[in-house]
Amino acid sequence: MFRCEAYAAPANDKPLGPLTIDRRDPTPEDVQIDILFCGVCHSDLHTARNEWGMTTYPVVPGHEILGRVAKVGSSVTKFKVGDLVGVGCMVDSCRVCSNCKEGLEQYCEVGNIQTFGSPDRHLGGTTHGGYSKSITVYEGFVLKVSEKLDPAAVAPLLCAGITTWSPLRHWKVGPGMKVGIVGLGGLGHMGVKFAHAFGAHVVLFTTSPGKIEDGKRLGADEVVVSKNADEMAAHTASFDFILDCVSADHDINAYLMLLKRDGTMCLVGAPERPMQVAAFPLLMARRSFAGSGIGGIAETQEMLDFCAEHGITADVEVINIKDINAAYERMLKSDVKYRFTIDMATLGAPAL
Amino acid sequence: MFRCEAYAAPANDKPLGPLTIDRRDPTPEDVQIDILFCGVCHSDLHTARNEWGMTTYPVVPGHEILGRVAKVGSSVTKFKVGDLVGVGCMVDSCRVCSNCKEGLEQYCEVGNIQTFGSPDRHLGGTTHGGYSKSITVYEGFVLKVSEKLDPAAVAPLLCAGITTWSPLRHWKVGPGMKVGIVGLGGLGHMGVKFAHAFGAHVVLFTTSPGKIEDGKRLGADEVVVSKNADEMAAHTASFDFILDCVSADHDINAYLMLLKRDGTMCLVGAPERPMQVAAFPLLMARRSFAGSGIGGIAETQEMLDFCAEHGITADVEVINIKDINAAYERMLKSDVKYRFTIDMATLGAPAL
Repeated sequence: MFRCEAYAAPANDKPLGPLTIDRRDPTPEDVQIDILFCGVCHSDLHTARNEWGMTTYPVVPGHEILGRVAKVGSSVTKFKVGDLVGVGCMVDSCRVCSNCKEGLEQYCEVGNIQTFGSPDRHLGGTTHGGYSKSITVYEGFVLKVSEKLDPAAVAPLLCAGITTWSPLRHWKVGPGMKVGIVGLGGLGHMGVKFAHAFGAHVVLFTTSPGKIEDGKRLGADEVVVSKNADEMAAHTASFDFILDCVSADHDINAYLMLLKRDGTMCLVGAPERPMQVAAFPLLMARRSFAGSGIGGIAETQEMLDFCAEHGITADVEVINIKDINAAYERMLKSDVKYRFTIDMATLGAPAL
Repeated sequence: MFRCEAYAAPANDKPLGPLTIDRRDPTPEDVQIDILFCGVCHSDLHTARNEWGMTTYPVVPGHEILGRVAKVGSSVTKFKVGDLVGVGCMVDSCRVCSNCKEGLEQYCEVGNIQTFGSPDRHLGGTTHGGYSKSITVYEGFVLKVSEKLDPAAVAPLLCAGITTWSPLRHWKVGPGMKVGIVGLGGLGHMGVKFAHAFGAHVVLFTTSPGKIEDGKRLGADEVVVSKNADEMAAHTASFDFILDCVSADHDINAYLMLLKRDGTMCLVGAPERPMQVAAFPLLMARRSFAGSGIGGIAETQEMLDFCAEHGITADVEVINIKDINAAYERMLKSDVKYRFTIDMATLGAPAL
């Protein structure tokens, strides 16, 4: 066990601040990672403020972790000291249920171990995330990262990237398909990049006319300002697939109506309140409203490899850890293009 | 053109009563049918009372039509006088859009011609349904019916039957699958029969403990009283597919939680008010909430042929047309096992 500097939320109504936490020494199958960058996900804020009602304090958020291997356990075969690696939303799972065996650990039937806020089966208490200098993780949940890409901009791929990649792959988005991406934030901007890279005709939906040019730069073939009912109606019954990246309240039925027969709209945001879904948009064209959560470890590796090959990363604004509370406020105002990444060099001393 | 006795709703707040309507003489491609029986669907009541806000009065409801061919047009090849036939919810469509060409006329992109309440392109006004002595229909929308089955009990297959058959087939319900049917009414009782006939393990969900025995008689392997939270929880994450046959307000999320990873719940009822759908049940296991509307003509024929082969019909209570208003009231109280069918011999004189 060793001591490690971190940044934590001490209570739901208190700002995040420095905290020294314990990390375990690597077991034979663990990898100890020096964290270089950590992306800032809306889930970090939800958890810090206990908006899902499940937070144990203090909590160290952060599950878009990018770093270098500092130590490896005696039986680790996939990694060596100095490797560039990533850790996403999970650090372990039951490893034996049918979903885990299929490489879909995100749907582990027992419940996977989240990077922060889950029971810590090694040290007791709860797991602590990536707003810290170091983390020790079972090698099965550590991802290889190419040296070709900007590591600060790779970090958000570990959550925002895989969360959009997984449903786009599952629903086989590709050439000849018309695909909608709803919302241009951390998730949405990755959705646009991936759907474009997969060869689909991509339509971005945004409430902000100011995002039209940026949407096109990121890969959208068309941008629809969703507040304009006429613009929306022009796309009625024309989409094969829509990826809904919005976490705020919004009109689901307006988007369902844009799907072709047998089309699917998949939610990856997590609106707090239940959504109002009308029967007729579903019945009239055998449409589906689905959801998808992050992605499995194997497909996360596949995504990272694809990104290295195609030069895809997130658009990031690198911040000092001291600015994390201000960054949360800006995130709430959608004032970020399109993901904050914390430079962990700004957090005190290295792990001891 | 000829005069035909019928039963119609004259206004949203008036009981149904006798009305003489016009029917067209068969064009070369039409079939003129003497109606023997007509099933009573909840849509009849919704329309008669203008609960969907789209009714033109007077309206003759009825889209579960069973009869015998009285005349055929000069180019009709599929039918001859005396054939037992059925007509369901549609009497025509654009015939040329991609959905129609795929045999999915229920999703006609132009909008199909409903059996009642649609614009009548032959006589003007709106189409009139099966609460009548006779109907003239384009042969492409007339179904062949086996003489082997009780015709009164076949009539409801034309809507309640195909509406449940189509999604069970589309989502490939069969042996090795655990399938839920929600609600034991006109639709639900057909859903139980079909899912059982397809070899699935069938679980019926009902709010009425009094329906347990009947559910098993109809083919359910298990019956869950949905008001009992413990009984519901015992089935968490275990269903491949759930067919939701309920039109009243109900808790969608409670059923979504019962689906396995990648499971689908398909709605075939049409609740008036939007449903409250929470994000997490969808996200946590990549579940889908879908809808399905009736079925195409080819698959309706397939269903009728299957029913003849397997001896499947609806459980019906045959009524006199004079009792239709009382039947509507009983239907609202779910006091029918499980479909009313009007014996059209009780409606005045034959067509002239």
